[in-house]
Amino acid sequence: MDREQALQLVRQQIKGPRYDHTLRVVDTAVELAEKFGADRNKAELAAIFHDYAKLMPITELKDIIIKTKQDVRLLDYHPELWHGPVAAHLVYDKFGIDDESILNAIRFHTTGRANMTLFEKIIYLADYIEPGRKFPGVEKTRGMALVDLDQALLQALRNTITFLIDRNSPIFPDTFEAYNRLTMNKGGNND
Amino acid sequence: MDREQALQLVRQQIKGPRYDHTLRVVDTAVELAEKFGADRNKAELAAIFHDYAKLMPITELKDIIIKTKQDVRLLDYHPELWHGPVAAHLVYDKFGIDDESILNAIRFHTTGRANMTLFEKIIYLADYIEPGRKFPGVEKTRGMALVDLDQALLQALRNTITFLIDRNSPIFPDTFEAYNRLTMNKGGNND
Repeated sequence: MDREQALQLVRQQIKGPRYDHTLRVVDTAVELAEKFGADRNKAELAAIFHDYAKLMPITELKDIIIKTKQDVRLLDYHPELWHGPVAAHLVYDKFGIDDESILNAIRFHTTGRANMTLFEKIIYLADYIEPGRKFPGVEKTRGMALVDLDQALLQALRNTITFLIDRNSPIFPDTFEAYNRLTMNKGGNND
Repeated sequence: MDREQALQLVRQQIKGPRYDHTLRVVDTAVELAEKFGADRNKAELAAIFHDYAKLMPITELKDIIIKTKQDVRLLDYHPELWHGPVAAHLVYDKFGIDDESILNAIRFHTTGRANMTLFEKIIYLADYIEPGRKFPGVEKTRGMALVDLDQALLQALRNTITFLIDRNSPIFPDTFEAYNRLTMNKGGNND
């Protein structure tokens, strides 16, 4: 599937600001893919579809997670975490995209997970740092991403976990495991 | 075993400031036990022995964790987390204390875990808030503990996780699961 076909499919599903966000994520993902030697076209395709299920009603997201045997632990956590796995299922089911590296980059773009692939890191970060994002600390993570993908990812995960703790919100285990694994790979501070 | 016998055994193992800390944890644990309707004597015994292994060399702690089949995941995390399970083993093995509620309160006093018992909460918090503790936020948690044990425990876990994230340190899964479970039990903020 080429870029224009894919964008057309996404436009039928998500409109307005969310579609504009997707375009910025695509640009950022392509930039990161070229910078870090990942397949440009696969990164583009994953980015185009990453929010494909973002505006679906949560009852529908929930049904699909159950019926298609996605990770049902998600249902105990914030519905914001549900659209990634559902989008991965839908683009496989409806559009025949069967490249696991693309599907997993879509699937894990909100939660992260331990031992993320290069593609997963690129989509996660592109979503987090695209130029429309304005939250505190984003500039720092944006600058890091152009230098050290793992360092930027770790910073994004730290921000996310701290944000959730400030709000007394539960943290999905994959997110926490992504953080732990990265700190350990970087020789984590165990002093 | 009575209080004096237990204290004598502990005094042979830990001395100076660490022993003084233990005495303050005992007083705090007894106060919390009386406040929240737990068995005073069992809380006292758990508190007396909670740091029994605190000053052992980490090579020895490690050996005991492996040989006695404690949770070996601990060995990938900070050695500070190792003395609780080792103390639980030693007081069982050397002194015949076989009450699981006492042993688990000792075992989990540093990491916490999901679904802690009343005893586990009391020892965890007594250790955290005893009057010798001076770190930022301790006053707030101390005040909470006299009113709502779960709220105080949640606050202690939030402080601990935030502290570890600030230092880029990995977080033991039991600690994180303790936080998640408490936020969920309290109707966690999933908005």
